[in-house]
Amino acid sequence: MDSSWEASVTDSINAIYLLFSAYLVFVMQLGFAMLCAGSVRAKNAMNIMLTNVVDAVVGSLSYYLFGFAFAFGDSNPFIGASYFALKDIPCSSYDYSFFLYQWAFAIAVAGITSGSIAERTQFTAYLFFSFFLTGFVYPVVAHWLWSSNGWLSPNSTYLLFGSGAIDFAGSGVVHLVGGIAGFWGSIVEGPRVGRFDAFGNPVKMRGHNATLVVLGTLLLWFGWFGFNPGSFNKILVAYPHMADQGNWTSVGRTAVTTTLAGSTAGIVTLFGRRLLVGHWDAMDVCNGVLGGFVAITSGCSVVEPWAAILCGFCAAWVLIGLNILALKFKFDDPLEAAQLHGGCGAWGLIFTGLFAKEEFVLQAYNSGKTQIIRPSGLILGGGWGLFGAQIVELLSIVVWVSLTMGPLFYLLQKLGILRISSDEEVAGLDISSHGGYAYDASQEESNARFYGEYLRMQQQ
Amino acid sequence: MDSSWEASVTDSINAIYLLFSAYLVFVMQLGFAMLCAGSVRAKNAMNIMLTNVVDAVVGSLSYYLFGFAFAFGDSNPFIGASYFALKDIPCSSYDYSFFLYQWAFAIAVAGITSGSIAERTQFTAYLFFSFFLTGFVYPVVAHWLWSSNGWLSPNSTYLLFGSGAIDFAGSGVVHLVGGIAGFWGSIVEGPRVGRFDAFGNPVKMRGHNATLVVLGTLLLWFGWFGFNPGSFNKILVAYPHMADQGNWTSVGRTAVTTTLAGSTAGIVTLFGRRLLVGHWDAMDVCNGVLGGFVAITSGCSVVEPWAAILCGFCAAWVLIGLNILALKFKFDDPLEAAQLHGGCGAWGLIFTGLFAKEEFVLQAYNSGKTQIIRPSGLILGGGWGLFGAQIVELLSIVVWVSLTMGPLFYLLQKLGILRISSDEEVAGLDISSHGGYAYDASQEESNARFYGEYLRMQQQ
Amino acid sequence: MDSSWEASVTDSINAIYLLFSAYLVFVMQLGFAMLCAGSVRAKNAMNIMLTNVVDAVVGSLSYYLFGFAFAFGDSNPFIGASYFALKDIPCSSYDYSFFLYQWAFAIAVAGITSGSIAERTQFTAYLFFSFFLTGFVYPVVAHWLWSSNGWLSPNSTYLLFGSGAIDFAGSGVVHLVGGIAGFWGSIVEGPRVGRFDAFGNPVKMRGHNATLVVLGTLLLWFGWFGFNPGSFNKILVAYPHMADQGNWTSVGRTAVTTTLAGSTAGIVTLFGRRLLVGHWDAMDVCNGVLGGFVAITSGCSVVEPWAAILCGFCAAWVLIGLNILALKFKFDDPLEAAQLHGGCGAWGLIFTGLFAKEEFVLQAYNSGKTQIIRPSGLILGGGWGLFGAQIVELLSIVVWVSLTMGPLFYLLQKLGILRISSDEEVAGLDISSHGGYAYDASQEESNARFYGEYLRMQQQ
Repeated sequence: MDSSWEASVTDSINAIYLLFSAYLVFVMQLGFAMLCAGSVRAKNAMNIMLTNVVDAVVGSLSYYLFGFAFAFGDSNPFIGASYFALKDIPCSSYDYSFFLYQWAFAIAVAGITSGSIAERTQFTAYLFFSFFLTGFVYPVVAHWLWSSNGWLSPNSTYLLFGSGAIDFAGSGVVHLVGGIAGFWGSIVEGPRVGRFDAFGNPVKMRGHNATLVVLGTLLLWFGWFGFNPGSFNKILVAYPHMADQGNWTSVGRTAVTTTLAGSTAGIVTLFGRRLLVGHWDAMDVCNGVLGGFVAITSGCSVVEPWAAILCGFCAAWVLIGLNILALKFKFDDPLEAAQLHGGCGAWGLIFTGLFAKEEFVLQAYNSGKTQIIRPSGLILGGGWGLFGAQIVELLSIVVWVSLTMGPLFYLLQKLGILRISSDEEVAGLDISSHGGYAYDASQEESNARFYGEYLRMQQQ
Repeated sequence: MDSSWEASVTDSINAIYLLFSAYLVFVMQLGFAMLCAGSVRAKNAMNIMLTNVVDAVVGSLSYYLFGFAFAFGDSNPFIGASYFALKDIPCSSYDYSFFLYQWAFAIAVAGITSGSIAERTQFTAYLFFSFFLTGFVYPVVAHWLWSSNGWLSPNSTYLLFGSGAIDFAGSGVVHLVGGIAGFWGSIVEGPRVGRFDAFGNPVKMRGHNATLVVLGTLLLWFGWFGFNPGSFNKILVAYPHMADQGNWTSVGRTAVTTTLAGSTAGIVTLFGRRLLVGHWDAMDVCNGVLGGFVAITSGCSVVEPWAAILCGFCAAWVLIGLNILALKFKFDDPLEAAQLHGGCGAWGLIFTGLFAKEEFVLQAYNSGKTQIIRPSGLILGGGWGLFGAQIVELLSIVVWVSLTMGPLFYLLQKLGILRISSDEEVAGLDISSHGGYAYDASQEESNARFYGEYLRMQQQ
Repeated sequence: MDSSWEASVTDSINAIYLLFSAYLVFVMQLGFAMLCAGSVRAKNAMNIMLTNVVDAVVGSLSYYLFGFAFAFGDSNPFIGASYFALKDIPCSSYDYSFFLYQWAFAIAVAGITSGSIAERTQFTAYLFFSFFLTGFVYPVVAHWLWSSNGWLSPNSTYLLFGSGAIDFAGSGVVHLVGGIAGFWGSIVEGPRVGRFDAFGNPVKMRGHNATLVVLGTLLLWFGWFGFNPGSFNKILVAYPHMADQGNWTSVGRTAVTTTLAGSTAGIVTLFGRRLLVGHWDAMDVCNGVLGGFVAITSGCSVVEPWAAILCGFCAAWVLIGLNILALKFKFDDPLEAAQLHGGCGAWGLIFTGLFAKEEFVLQAYNSGKTQIIRPSGLILGGGWGLFGAQIVELLSIVVWVSLTMGPLFYLLQKLGILRISSDEEVAGLDISSHGGYAYDASQEESNARFYGEYLRMQQQ
């Protein structure tokens, strides 16, 4: 045996871990598609599912051609500029498995935003904004946080406030970006026809299929096991001075914190909504669970399980509170995406600044090095460095996405290619743009049903 | 390279194996949700899906706080009492990945039982029994069989009848527990309104969506690949005197026995029901497949593939027979959960006592030790030790669950918080407790449909 | 540490990789079930889902008993004849994990064909052809290409044209076989009642549920990550003279080429169909994505990412073109399975002959050996050897499947047990053969709905 065998073993183990995590993250695309489909009215189901499929297929090409290069290429702290079309991959830094994992993240972002502008957006406009968001706006933020020379990165040689911001799996990079983009889209488009009555009171517009919402939520839960625990990228990394622990321990702990945060948020929403609306609301519990996941995504690898419970507890109230505010201000987001991904994502960044544990921060961000002190959670006595960096990340993302996506939506609106006409909206996007409804219940079926009963009776 | 690198490699490989198996077991929660939803009437779909989500979120907290401690803590052969709220985890015995894997098992139990009491149970009662079952009744049984000092465990220093009971992935611990709990719930609540007519004849109450049943069944199949082959907990364990075999071989064989048992049960049910009811019944085939899986779950790691086929063959007839008995005694279990998980689970325990192969028993339960003789399957000449222990496990579980869950259901019934009123039952739980139906097909949609056709005709 | 530890590590890593890949391939069965269900009319949904479940359970037994022996047993270049009922497994060549992986492939084939003959085939006939196809016709082709002594195999000692055919994950072995079988089934049965009107013009017969089509498509995408990257069978294989690369790199690249081909085909279909039919058709995009996957399946491991894009681009036009031809010739395949799996599968074989890169061919098919020259893609200057072998494979499969499945369908038709009667076809298979419809929307539910509203109003 020689050292090259050791290298092969290490690379194989890490490749299995990262590739199968990537496959799980891809399942989130399916989860989003089902969640979105179930949450809109039947007449728009085909449209929103198509947008989810299109996110994946368009995102594959744009991320391959330049998105990955913007995010992980070398050059400057703001944007990358190498590895276009996978040139020079594999290299010593990145293998194909890393690209695949990041691709699965990239296509998730536009899926979040599509929820905010559902049921009233032209498909052509969707193609524009999806391409721009996945191919440019998101990769730039990913570069800031996750590349080795990003200006907010906790891995770079220059650390903002001596710390860098910790956004492990992307409460900010993925969810806040998608949520803010959705916020502007929804603001520019305005509420759906009939969402608020003549007196400004909200009219409930129920999704057409709760089963799909539950299916989507649990698929997202499944996928999140790839999203959060997978974000270590490598599992075979031993911690210094701890013979029996390494990334494999932290990966497991990350799965546990993720589970606890989502579960707690689900329970709190269950009882909180019971008090508020008087019944046990399954749809709200689903959103609560997702809100907990979104919030823990930033700090999942650097907090204790008990802190994850606290994270989920607050995430539920953030979501409940923002939903009340949204109604008050007549803000209509069919999937609550701005509230859920934007609001809980922002809370996640703050939470990490408060509760990150120094030991875990050193493990996650200093593998191989020993005896380094790093800023950690403010409440745990870790100083202001990390907390400050988290706030800077939060504000930077809000400003960046607002300055890029806001004008884009405004421009599309001015060009008259953003929102569909009221006639089309009442008829539904599926019939006006996609050639027919998602569900076929034509007269023929009804006839067949009765004819079948007739046949059966004859046979008896 | 030193021995700590070897330890890291071993831990990483085992962590990947156990974590991804845990993720697959979690998929079973989704499978149950879809299976249950499809098997009930549309008016109760939201209710039963909510119970499945609630099992997961409530189970996460209760299992974290004390369930895991009861199951795997040290102390006495009856119940554990350490590791509350993951205190002292990770330790030399257990890492986070083990907790996550066991958590995924724990939340499955209440899901089984929810099927038995579907369509007529108050949601508040559900919260009580789910919490009690997942947090206490189930973990105690898990302690008996799977902890290193359980009184029935095949891994403890004291082996019952020199053998201990073999319940590898839980035909008894999981499925029999869930099935017996469901049996008592269903007995105490009585049949659904209209299930039997004035003359005592059963009235078919078809589930509202067969697609969901198939979806759920195949998702459960997928998840079972985590449930059974994953139960080795470690994959990198070489067998003594067999340089080319180890747990990795047994893990694969376990996947094969699982597949063969479920498939055989499915085929037998297909043809058996064809003879009995005169048509090819897809729903019964799905249940047959699941019955085969439930039965093989106990012995999956210690039997030959040919024995697995025998196991599935009998499981199908156990299920068919119990379903006939259930109708005869006017026992109404909407998901057949008592028959399927209880009946086939019991058969699985007996089967293992008859067909376990000594070589495989030694591999699964004596890793690292050599030259030990252990009792194995009665029919294969392995003596009465194992068979006796299996029977003791079966009876112990029936008694324990009956003594705990029976009184609980009775008490809830007496307090008037178990069963819903007849009015609510006729109207459906979704409208009475959850704010509306799962499916929206309001007048608006119908109008939109015709309006859309009108628009399309105008455009042509 | 000794060499047996090294062997254990290697076996464990490869077992994890292959088993979890097998689990993903199994998900494709679920994907097919949902795709098929959504693509047919509601009155036949139960029937087609049952066929998918039956493929899995019947295929398990037939593949265990003799299918695997025919495919991977030793003996002659045409058909294998050892390992019946897993005799002598595990052995030095094959472990259980390999059997499980191949089983998951085998059950997929009949699923493809079931789409072509959907909505008009007797269930008894289905049992015959499924058993024959999975147990004999398919394993023979698998033996030709994938066993170490197959006459077309690129791994055998005798290489056809000094090259052997490269069908890495089975564009030919799986998809072309299934597609050609479906072609003959559909030809023999003829179009569905009402598919073409009195003037020979096609009448659109829409599937009943687009959500299921999208669900199925994305599940298939998920499963394809097991199908293509998993087909290396081993991940821990270092390449000679490349310390930092090995199968783990190629596995990742294969996942990337697969993703890019499917995505490109999806985009091309999206815009191509927009031009042809005037709307954005979600169903066609789904089929386009699948067509791209089918085409890249043959060469996924031996082509550059840019070539995969080209592969997907052409696959979309192959599919669009064949669908136009099908309408012209009044060929009715409800799932477009012959066009999609047959047409794009054939294109995939040709594509590999044109664009396989020698370096990658050597890596995938000469692991451990050094300095060997092999024929590769014609366009990349790799000579005619590979291209010729690809054409021979294509023709051989078409001839073999036509000679076996064609007569079988013809015989079943002559015996009057292939096609259902027109009365049954109008009524739907579910009511005539499977005891009822997949969806229950009886009067009771409607009443319950209004009664529920009444109850709710009273409570307010």
